Amino acid sequence: MTVELPSAQQVREARERIAGHVHRTAVLGCRSLDAIAGATLRLKCENLQKTGSFKARGATHAVARISPAVRCVVTHSSGNHGAALAFAARAHGLEAYVVVPRGAPASKRAAIEAYGGRIVECEPTMAARERGAMEIVERTGGRLVHPYDDPDVVRGQGTVALEAWEQTGGFDAIVVPVGGGGLLAGCAGLVRALGGPRVRVVAAEPAGADDAYRSWQAGRRVSVESPRTVADGLRATIGEHGLLALRTAVDEVVRVDDAQILEAMTLLAERAKLVVEPSGAVALAAALAGAVRGRDALVVLSGGNRDLRTAGG
Amino acid sequence: MTVELPSAQQVREARERIAGHVHRTAVLGCRSLDAIAGATLRLKCENLQKTGSFKARGATHAVARISPAVRCVVTHSSGNHGAALAFAARAHGLEAYVVVPRGAPASKRAAIEAYGGRIVECEPTMAARERGAMEIVERTGGRLVHPYDDPDVVRGQGTVALEAWEQTGGFDAIVVPVGGGGLLAGCAGLVRALGGPRVRVVAAEPAGADDAYRSWQAGRRVSVESPRTVADGLRATIGEHGLLALRTAVDEVVRVDDAQILEAMTLLAERAKLVVEPSGAVALAAALAGAVRGRDALVVLSGGNRDLRTAGG
Repeated sequence: MTVELPSAQQVREARERIAGHVHRTAVLGCRSLDAIAGATLRLKCENLQKTGSFKARGATHAVARISPAVRCVVTHSSGNHGAALAFAARAHGLEAYVVVPRGAPASKRAAIEAYGGRIVECEPTMAARERGAMEIVERTGGRLVHPYDDPDVVRGQGTVALEAWEQTGGFDAIVVPVGGGGLLAGCAGLVRALGGPRVRVVAAEPAGADDAYRSWQAGRRVSVESPRTVADGLRATIGEHGLLALRTAVDEVVRVDDAQILEAMTLLAERAKLVVEPSGAVALAAALAGAVRGRDALVVLSGGNRDLRTAGG
Repeated sequence: MTVELPSAQQVREARERIAGHVHRTAVLGCRSLDAIAGATLRLKCENLQKTGSFKARGATHAVARISPAVRCVVTHSSGNHGAALAFAARAHGLEAYVVVPRGAPASKRAAIEAYGGRIVECEPTMAARERGAMEIVERTGGRLVHPYDDPDVVRGQGTVALEAWEQTGGFDAIVVPVGGGGLLAGCAGLVRALGGPRVRVVAAEPAGADDAYRSWQAGRRVSVESPRTVADGLRATIGEHGLLALRTAVDEVVRVDDAQILEAMTLLAERAKLVVEPSGAVALAAALAGAVRGRDALVVLSGGNRDLRTAGG
């Protein structure tokens, strides 16, 4: 795997390939949030994206690039990427296998199944998940689509920033949540290509899963043993693309704690009337803490898949 | 007061007058809601409107039409209209007095004050509210802006449908919540003017406050003694403009109970990631109950001002 940040041309090509399959999501403003942030915030609503998160972009792009000879795709993810890959596979007439650890929430399984994905259970360890996925790849000849460390996935995620750049006429800061770093790498690459060094690129991360912050400080990958955060979508360890973005394109990694994340989530519902999942509020939480003061900033609301019918919602 | 439904030209003029002061709100689709409704639903997101509801349109239009000699506006409303009028007045450099019954929720008062409105308390009866407003009008020479039975307010509310008609390229059904009937009269007039009789016009009403349904059936105004519904924004008695719409432009009034309203609210959050107040989910509840089966239907999500930090939210 060649690890590089995508060029503007590569992201434009990705956008062509996924057009018609995913939404061009709204960019909304909200004066009362601006007042708290001391900035002009432009909320990129990937919570309104197909499947409820930006993951539909990368998954759709990866599936669109698969050789016609391949008839199925495989991943291991109990989160948004699993549902997104099932969605993308169905749109292209392929089968999707998603390896899910025993004990994953029923709502996550239901989302994968709703898009026609096939769930394969495994033990709840990373080794079991990876082994399970590899076994399916070997048996079916399918292609493994990694949730973030895949160049096609990264280019697809970069379309979030490309689209927003065109919708807004440009901005001078962007705040992107970081977990595995696929969204960050795609957006950072695109924004550096279009806006150069004058655009401040901020990665926002839960304080309880701050491997990106530590890796940015150290200049090499540092992992966190037991990530603990309400933002379940951002517990993954930073990948190769994300690490490259941290080294070459990110100005700052801002950490926010769970109370800040939950407050940002409530403010989004109250003031902007938007439902996001905890991970989807992390970039806003960083902006509200002053990370882009005085700037015209794109804030990526990455997803909205929150379980609203259980106490844990 | 001349009571008539607005013409397309009148609504277009209203739109010119309010442009730049209010948002052109998004129209969103959601496949999983379509599947339940058996229709193609286009959700007109007035919950994302300035002040959190469509009321900003009518109030802004009424204020824009006031003679320059008048320096203040007056209303009695503890709900969205009070905040909308304060918002509109501030934008035009006028003062707004809002008569609010003792015991109104703190969040409603806070919204009025946040836009610079002056709150005048009164006893919690309709007679006291009207008397309080008239006293201020006499003292200040201000103009009373009724929440729904005002031609300028009605024309302003009609811009919801005009805007959506242009955004979607037209539709063959519209579902509008009805309380006092200002939104209904504005939208019904506009839709009949642009789409003629082929567009099905459905008014959606809480079953516990079904004076519009009874009035539609009787052909004259029938009031309900003690309205009881979770949809607090729709407890008002139908006005003259609303009654005219029911008589001449509405195909059906569909009643939904509180359980249907709350389920529609939850589905909007889960599937469309949107926060609405109970009144804002009433039109969707009617659509999900089959009111526009087989049609391409505009569904007006009228507002999003829900108190999310208290148990009552």
